[in-house]
Parts: sequence; C-alpha cells; structure tokens
Amino acid sequence: MAPAPQSVAPRSSIAAYKPSRSWRTWLFGRPLATADAAEQAIGKGVGLAVFASDALSSTAYATQEIFIILAVAGVGAFAHAFPISLTIVGLLAIVTLSYEQVIHAYPNGGGAYIVARDNLGELPAQIAAGALLTDYVLTVAVSVSSGVAQLASAFPALYGHRVVVGVVFVLAIMFVNLRGVKESGAAFAVPSYFFILMMFATVGVAFAKELLGTLGRVEDPPFLESAHVGPVTLFLLLHAFSSGTTALTGVEAISNGITAFKEPRSRNAAITLLWMSGILATLFLTITFLAGRIGAVPSESETVISQLTRTAFGGRGLLYLATIGATTLILVMAANTAYNGFPRLAALQAQDSFLPRQLTYRGSRLVFSRGIAVLAILACLLIVVFQASVTSLIPLYAIGVFLSFTLAQAGMTRRWWKLGRARGVDKGQPVSRAWFVKMVVNGLGALLTAIVTGVFAVTKFHDGAWVVLLVIPSLVALFFAIHRHYRELAVHLSLEDWGVPSRIRRHRVILPISGVHRGTVEALRYARALSDDITAVHVSMDVADAEAIRRKWGLWGNGVRLVILDSPYRLLLEPVLDYIKRISAQRQPNETITIVVPQFVPRKQWHNVLHAQTAVLLRLALLFKPGIVITNVPYHVDLDRPAGMPAEEIA
Amino acid sequence: MAPAPQSVAPRSSIAAYKPSRSWRTWLFGRPLATADAAEQAIGKGVGLAVFASDALSSTAYATQEIFIILAVAGVGAFAHAFPISLTIVGLLAIVTLSYEQVIHAYPNGGGAYIVARDNLGELPAQIAAGALLTDYVLTVAVSVSSGVAQLASAFPALYGHRVVVGVVFVLAIMFVNLRGVKESGAAFAVPSYFFILMMFATVGVAFAKELLGTLGRVEDPPFLESAHVGPVTLFLLLHAFSSGTTALTGVEAISNGITAFKEPRSRNAAITLLWMSGILATLFLTITFLAGRIGAVPSESETVISQLTRTAFGGRGLLYLATIGATTLILVMAANTAYNGFPRLAALQAQDSFLPRQLTYRGSRLVFSRGIAVLAILACLLIVVFQASVTSLIPLYAIGVFLSFTLAQAGMTRRWWKLGRARGVDKGQPVSRAWFVKMVVNGLGALLTAIVTGVFAVTKFHDGAWVVLLVIPSLVALFFAIHRHYRELAVHLSLEDWGVPSRIRRHRVILPISGVHRGTVEALRYARALSDDITAVHVSMDVADAEAIRRKWGLWGNGVRLVILDSPYRLLLEPVLDYIKRISAQRQPNETITIVVPQFVPRKQWHNVLHAQTAVLLRLALLFKPGIVITNVPYHVDLDRPAGMPAEEIA
Repeated sequence: MAPAPQSVAPRSSIAAYKPSRSWRTWLFGRPLATADAAEQAIGKGVGLAVFASDALSSTAYATQEIFIILAVAGVGAFAHAFPISLTIVGLLAIVTLSYEQVIHAYPNGGGAYIVARDNLGELPAQIAAGALLTDYVLTVAVSVSSGVAQLASAFPALYGHRVVVGVVFVLAIMFVNLRGVKESGAAFAVPSYFFILMMFATVGVAFAKELLGTLGRVEDPPFLESAHVGPVTLFLLLHAFSSGTTALTGVEAISNGITAFKEPRSRNAAITLLWMSGILATLFLTITFLAGRIGAVPSESETVISQLTRTAFGGRGLLYLATIGATTLILVMAANTAYNGFPRLAALQAQDSFLPRQLTYRGSRLVFSRGIAVLAILACLLIVVFQASVTSLIPLYAIGVFLSFTLAQAGMTRRWWKLGRARGVDKGQPVSRAWFVKMVVNGLGALLTAIVTGVFAVTKFHDGAWVVLLVIPSLVALFFAIHRHYRELAVHLSLEDWGVPSRIRRHRVILPISGVHRGTVEALRYARALSDDITAVHVSMDVADAEAIRRKWGLWGNGVRLVILDSPYRLLLEPVLDYIKRISAQRQPNETITIVVPQFVPRKQWHNVLHAQTAVLLRLALLFKPGIVITNVPYHVDLDRPAGMPAEEIA
Repeated sequence: MAPAPQSVAPRSSIAAYKPSRSWRTWLFGRPLATADAAEQAIGKGVGLAVFASDALSSTAYATQEIFIILAVAGVGAFAHAFPISLTIVGLLAIVTLSYEQVIHAYPNGGGAYIVARDNLGELPAQIAAGALLTDYVLTVAVSVSSGVAQLASAFPALYGHRVVVGVVFVLAIMFVNLRGVKESGAAFAVPSYFFILMMFATVGVAFAKELLGTLGRVEDPPFLESAHVGPVTLFLLLHAFSSGTTALTGVEAISNGITAFKEPRSRNAAITLLWMSGILATLFLTITFLAGRIGAVPSESETVISQLTRTAFGGRGLLYLATIGATTLILVMAANTAYNGFPRLAALQAQDSFLPRQLTYRGSRLVFSRGIAVLAILACLLIVVFQASVTSLIPLYAIGVFLSFTLAQAGMTRRWWKLGRARGVDKGQPVSRAWFVKMVVNGLGALLTAIVTGVFAVTKFHDGAWVVLLVIPSLVALFFAIHRHYRELAVHLSLEDWGVPSRIRRHRVILPISGVHRGTVEALRYARALSDDITAVHVSMDVADAEAIRRKWGLWGNGVRLVILDSPYRLLLEPVLDYIKRISAQRQPNETITIVVPQFVPRKQWHNVLHAQTAVLLRLALLFKPGIVITNVPYHVDLDRPAGMPAEEIA
C-alpha cells in the first residue's frame, strides 16, 4: 500500500460547523454536540419514570382482565385469581431475572433483538424485532386511546372528537421526546411517581383497614353480567392466566434502552429493572388480593381499581379522585416508553442494514428523531383506522411482546448451553458453575412465555390477532428485502478487485436551447468550459421561429453546431430525448455525455408557474439513463437590478 | 452582420420525432401533426352545434326569468313580457350585427378581447378577458348544475350526490373536448339538433293549434306565489328586461372561435352566427308569445317550457318527454361552448404574455389542452364550493358577458370613428360610406349593454354579484403582474447592448463524498474531465470513519485534495453548504464553481427510501445561489448483473 500523497492531508484549519439559532432552537432546545452524549444520560430515578410507565400502567387493568375471564365460572371462581396472579408474578420473576442477565451480557442494549441475533441467528432476531416494533406502535395507540376513553367518560363532549384528541396526544408526546431523553424524562417523572405514590397509598390504607377489620366489602358493586355459569376448566384457568400476563408488557423496555443510562450503565439499568419489577409485583399481587377480599366485580362501567380505591378511602373523596387521575395519566404515559424503545430498536436494526440507514442518525437533541417521527405517524394511522377504539385494538396487543420474550429467553438458554458445554470463559471471566441452573430458569421462561404466546394467538385470533400474525411475517420479509439491497449494493460499490477506471477521453456536451438569450449564452459559456465538442439542440414547432433562432445563433453561438429538431406533433421533451438516445447509442468507451440545460431560477417562487419547467422534466427523464450526466446551469434574474448589467457582476 | 459559420447549418437529415402508440392514443385518439390543423377545422353545421348550445339553451329559461320579475305586479303584468322580449331581440340584433362586423374585422378570432385591445387599449382588453374567463367558468358550473338539478328532479336519489355527479359531468365534457374540436363537435351535434328540432316542433304545433283556435289555456297551472301585487314601474320593466337578457349569453362564442372554422373562416363563422341568432330570436319570441297566450305561470315546481310543451302536445306523452329530455341535454351541453371559448381566449392572452405561456401549447389533438384542464378544475371547484346550487351560482352569472359586450361594441364604435374620420381604407378596401350608421348601431349597442350590465350589478349585488365585481379586478391585476414579469424578463434576457461574456478561465470543482466506493470514484473520474482544480469534501460525524475515508482516499483519490469537515452536531448538509459559501466568497471574476455530487440511482424506485437523498437536498439548497452549478453524476447499480464488472461496460 503506497503512502498517501501529501495533498490528501485534510485541512484542519476549517472550523467545525455550528448551527445558528433559529425557531428550531426555541422549539426543541439548543442543539447538542455528539460529545455531549454523556451529559444527556439519565440516572436510575429518571430511568424508572421513563421506562417503567408502560409496565406499571398494566397494574391498572391486569387484575380486572383475570376477573373478566373467571366471571364465566361465577363469583366463586374469583378465588382462583390470587393463585393465578402468584403464578404470573413467578413468571415475572423469571422474565426479570432473564432480562437482568441480558442487561449484563449486552450492555449496549437491544434486548430480545440482540440476544436472538447473537445466539439464534438472523431470522429469529428479525422476528423478535418485527414483533417488538409492532407492539411498540400498538402500545402508543392502545395507551393513548385508553387515556382518551378515560377522559371522554369524564367529559362526554370529547367522545365525538376522540380521534383528533388521540392524534394530538400522540404528537404532543412525540414533541416532548424530540426535545431529548433527559428533558422528556424530567417532564414525565412527576406523573409516574405520583401514580406509584397514590397506588401504594391505596393499597396501604386498604391493608391497614383489613388488619383492623374495617375494610368491609365494596359498596354498591356494579352488576355482574355473566349470563350462565360454566365449570372451572384448565383452559379457563390458562385463559385467565394469559389475560393477566398483560401485566408483564413493558418489562423488556429497559433492556432496549440501556444506552440511555449513566455509567455504570449495566448496573444502573439492572437496578432500575429490579426496582420496576418489585413495584410491579407488589402492586399487582396486593391489588388482586384486596380485590378478592372486598368482593370487587369486573365491569364495563366501573374498573376494579375504582372499586378498590373508593372502598379503601371510604368514598369518592379527594384521594379517590387523585388516584383515578393518576391512573389516567399513567395510561397515556405508557406511550412514552414506546417512544424510547422503538427508535432505539429501529436504529440497531438500521445499523445491521435491516431498516433504512437514516434511522441511525441522531437529531439535534441526540435522539433518534426519525424513529420517533415514524412511530408517531404509524400510531396516528392506527388511531385513525381503528377510530381510537380500545376494544378493537387490544386483541392485537401483547402477542408481539410475548413472542419477543420467548425469543430472548430461548436465546439466553442457548447461550448458557454453549458457554456451559465449552466450560469456557465469558468476556474474560470464568463462567459460573451455576450455568445449568440459569439455563433451566431461562428455558422454563422460554417455555412458559411460548405457551402464553400460543394461548394468546388462539384465544384472540378471531378478535384481530390474525392481523398481527400477518404483519410480523410481512415485516420480517421487508427487513430481509432491505438487507439484501444494502448487501448487494455494498458488493457492487466495493472497490476490491476493481481496476482503476481509465480517464475520460472524450466529453460530448449537448445543450438544449429554447431560444437565444442571456440564459442560453451563459449556459454556452459554461459548456465551453467543459469541452470543445458541443452541440446545441433546438426543438422547432414553427419554421419561422427556427429561422430566427438559427440567425441569432450565428451571431452568439461562437461557431458551435446547432441541430434543429422538427416537432410536427408539438412535443418538446420527446424529440430531445430521442436525439440524446441516438447520440448515446454511438458512444465510445471512455466517452461521457453531459447535457447542459439552462434553467431559469426566478426570484419569486410563484414565477415558476409562468415557465414550462422543461429543465426539471428533462432532468427527471434522463436521470435513469446510465452514462449520461445532466447539469442545470441556473440563470438567476434579479428583476430589481437595472437591465443591461452582465449577470456575472451580480453573481 | 457576419454570415453564419458553416457548422451552424442544421442537420436536416434528422427525422422528425413521431410519438409512438400508447394508452394516450387509445384514450384521446392518434396525435395530430400541426400540419393537420386544416383538416380539423369544422363546417357550419358542426360549428352551430359546438358554439350555439350556450346561446340556444337560454331559450329554456329566459322567458321564465322575465315572468318571475313581472309576477311582482300580478298576472296582468305578464302582458308586458312580449314587448320586453321584442326589445331584447332588438338588442340581440344589434349585438349580432356588431359581432358579425367583429368576425370580418378580426378573422383570427378573439372577439371582445381583440376588439378592445386594438381599439381601446390594454386595460379594457384585460377587463374584457377577465370578465369573459370568469363567465366561461360560471357557464360550465351553472349549466352543469342546472342539468344535474333537472336529473335530480327526475331521480331524487341523485340529490345527495349532486356535487359528485356535477364533477363527473364536467370531467366527461373535458375528456370529450381533449379528443379535439372536430370529434367533440360530432359528439355534441346530435343533441343540439335534437333540441332545435323538438323546440320548433313544440312551437309549430302550438301555432297551428292557435290558428285553428284549439290551443286553449294551460291545464292545472302551478300556483302563482306572488304575495302582494305592486305597481308596474319603469324599474320593474328594466329589471324584467335585464333578467330576460340572459337570452343573449353565448352570442359572443363564435367570435372567439373563428379559427375552428374551415376556410373561408370569416364567412363560415358569420353565417353560423346569423343562423344561431335567427334560431335564438325565433324561439325566444315565439315561446314568450305563446307562454302569454296559454296563461303560463312562472314557478319553482314546473318550468314555463314544460307548461307550453304539454299544452301544445296535449299532455305528458312521448313528445313531451322528448322535448323535456332535449332541454336537459342542451342545458348540460351549454358547458361545451365554454370549453371552446375559454382555452382559445386564454391562449390569445398567453400569447400577449398576460397569462402563463404554457397555455399557448396545443396538445396532441391540436386543442389547447391545458386551458381545457384549467377550465375543468375551476368549474369543479365552483361546483364543490357552491354545492352545485343553481340558485347560489346564477347571480354571479352573465355580468361578465355583458361587460364584454359593452367593451366589444365600444371598441367597434371607436374603430368606425377612427376609420370614418380618416376617410381612409381598411385592409386595402375603402371604408364604406355607411361608417356613421354602423358607428351609431355599435354605439347604441354599447350604451344598452352598459345599462344592462349596470342594472345587473345593482339588482343582483347582494345575491352574490359582488363576488364577480371583486374577482374581475383581481384577475386584471394578476394579468398585469404576469405581463410585467414576462416583459422585465425579456429585457433582462435580451442580448442587445450586452457584451459577449468572456470565457471562463478558472473552473473549481467541489466533490462532496460520503464514502469511498465505485460511485465516488466514478464521480471523481467525471470531475477530472471537467477541471484539474478539484476538492473532495467529507462531512465527518465520527473520527474513526473519517480516518478510514482518508486512508481509502489516499489509494483511490488520484492525489485530489480531501477536506474533512467535522460535524459535532451530526448535520450533513449544513457544513457542506457553509464550506461552499466560504469558497464562493473568494471567487474571482471568470471563475465558475461546479459541485459534482455522486447520486445513487436505484433500479427500483422504492429503494430510494433506503438512501439519504443528500444529492437531492444539496441540489435544492444550492439552486438559488448564483454563480454555482450543481451536477449530479448518477451511479446506476444494476443488482442483477454480476458484481465486479466496471460500470462503464454496461452503461
């Protein structure tokens, strides 16, 4: 390899470009340099608020979901709710432990996608990514729609405008996220902690009353609409179990977002995960337990949370209203978790060339702004198509998450298996003897989440789950199509085994002109700087016009050849294209053809309407012809300056 | 003037381009060469069908309009209808004579616009054009809306869809007109003559019965809704007169469309005009006379024509239905006249640089296709905005026509005055001694139509005429703005008093690159064909990447200077633009800067989504900077051909 010639050394004197202040600064905050990234990382406190809202919001409905299924077997079956919730918490423990291991094994983030990619291969990884991306979009649509539904039950006038309100919410959350992770975390921390506080207050008061024996039953419970009482079957219990597992949605968020945390990243992320799961498990278990004690009843008209809260606080007082308000807020904010997960996952995939590369660019505030925008657009589309109906959206939801759980844990199982069999070392550290136990835990998790995925798909297939089962494979096919394009392009653009192209020997210039004026003469002047082999071409629809142009060209054409193309059908573009095609067919190797097109650029945009835009059309038509270069020589006419001054003096 | 150098002689060997067959051939018919124009001219028979439908259709409502106004003074006032219609026919005679003179004086068409331009000046000409263009658009909207209303009274289910049906009608008439004047004339001749036949049959039968004394009164006339009976005042008579003058709308159409006629054009057009006015006058007078005899009553529920027809034919039989059907057809087809008038007038204005020049291009079928499309779009907009309501549209209608009548006749008056005073010759022929009589006739016509215009504007101001009185001046202002742009541009592009620009001495080439690959190397190869002064520029967001590019450039860069621009804020475009700005500031006279941008052109359009389109964005950003030329060097990647083959072998 020859040493680089001296002239190649970059000029280091050029100052780095700093964007100037504009409306964007005001809207999104001052631009952040790449070097500022470390300062933008978040701690555990903000991290919990950013990533936990999705998971914690599920405590607002998971208990109720179990009760709804059990109600088929009558009020007596509600006794099964607590054991089921204990099982779910067991599953949560396994999933949490698994993701805790993921966070340490993959400190650069990626969760299920990275785990599947590194341990199972490309196809499972893309399936996991497709499932997660689908679910992130659904998270936004579902949580915003449910938030709007809560609002609309308070203010019925909003009901007719729920689609618009939903879209506004989605865009508002997008906007806050575009300002950056740190700022959005700060903005969203208050409601998250408010929700946690109110829920613990409710549960705490209820337990205190239970110990004192003053809790009692819920007053005026809603009417239970179960028409006929069936038996408690294994399928019913499994169904109730799978409905309750919606409590687990959102647990994976932290593993995808490790890079948002301050150093030591893995440690901070893992601790946040444990905190989140602990809070989630505590709230879920206690709510389910207490709901059973007070005799809560699942209903469309009043949520189980509402029944529990008013029983605990003894009526619909201020504390009751605060708790219900906090619940509404956390439901809307669950969307925010998706705004953190989707763009990061999309960027990882884009880095691996499975999504458009533009998704890896970080915007002025160091967030993946394009991914955020794409998520917002897709979620708005869903809200519009499904008319912000939670009932229609919910069957599509959660399958993706469980599919990704299954793949992540299967990947971890495989990992332990490989490491254990090799009795080897992992990142310089000897693998713990406990690999077999860990593998069993992960394998059990994979099995259980796979079962949940299957039960979900079967029981909700007709309600809409089939859509997701169509979308995920389509997405995976798209990912691979994109990947193939990039891979083949890289091969074709590669300079390896490619001879240096010989220098261009002949340079033909074709100059289409509509008349002979200053713009044409300027373009000719430019063309003469390129080559001596120039042909001017004029399309003639009128014999007299052609004669006039030929005469003027004799005066101003500098002896350059002029070809007049007759156009009896009054077509402008086609005769030029036809001529270029014929010239191009005679092209020699090492010959290039450049079309120099004079393009009028008016000072006022609306003046464009007054011109035929032939330059633009010619450019579009020729862009797809190989071996031809099109150059537009703009002629700027400043109608404010006096005429007769050569254009170059003002240029 | 030096003789043109030999190389300037055009190659006559190049065959004229003939468009190949495509879906357009099937849709619009085979393209017509400019030389075919004479064959496409129409005779008097088709000419009457094409240009008369607007004028003749007014016989379907003009009598009724007079009766509606007179009804304010009670049934007795209907006796004034016939004298009023005689006055209107007198006015029609004057207007017809005037336009007959216009046709002979201006055999290339243009009517009021050309007459006003040549005799009164630019401002009156543009007012006439603005008035006529407005009225053409209204003609389409009103006549299609009234046709749809007739249809909807037959099929009430259509009422809810009247806007859509109206738009479909407008587009259907547009489509037929795009196929060419001759074909559309043939298509529309049948219904026009059918209408004339049925009306004469109705009137003839009624007169025969009147002579035999068996006509009688109309049976079950509709209820007359006039609440209070006022006196017959002069204003009332004038108002009834001006309402009845809607019968004259469309008379000017032939004078605008003379060029559509076969040679001898003027003679054919003039004879067609006389035939049209004769038929119009006969039908209008006889209908008004007979309506009075049978005691017809103006009503929203049944038209006067319907009352007359069923009285003549003795009930609602087949002949009655045929006449009413023909009336509906002619109302819709009145729109067709506007499709002939609007594009021709717009083309004349565009030729005079008062409208975008594109309007002068004739499409593949020798019609002004862009004007036809513009008319259809504007008419559709009107129909949508006014919800296809005839009642809302009608007050806007007819003012424009009368304004143009006034200007045309004032112009002709001035013309006779000038010619008469000069006792001179007109086009080689001595001016007839009758110039004074002709001037008086035209002057009287101008005065009367001016009065009608005034009465129209006053009596219908509040109903919507104010819109037209705002639109016409706005249009005139727009015409002059367009004219100013073209005129100033012509001055600035003029080569008169302009020194030959000196040859470009220095040519700097800037080559922005995102990496070093075949596309970049091809672009460098092209850049080296332009100049030896090349600077490659790379925007770096990552130190390691920049280092890799610097190393590869050392191998492939042919010793060309590479500037690396650090971009700490991850901006791609702005640092390049900033750099170009700095280079441009140091530019010498006789120096040109060309930005050579490698542009990836994928085989499949959707692959564009996978690329950042920096080339396109750079081009848009630089197009407005004077003195800089941007060249995109496309690199076409054919992913189907084996890799490793140099691009030039397939180009």
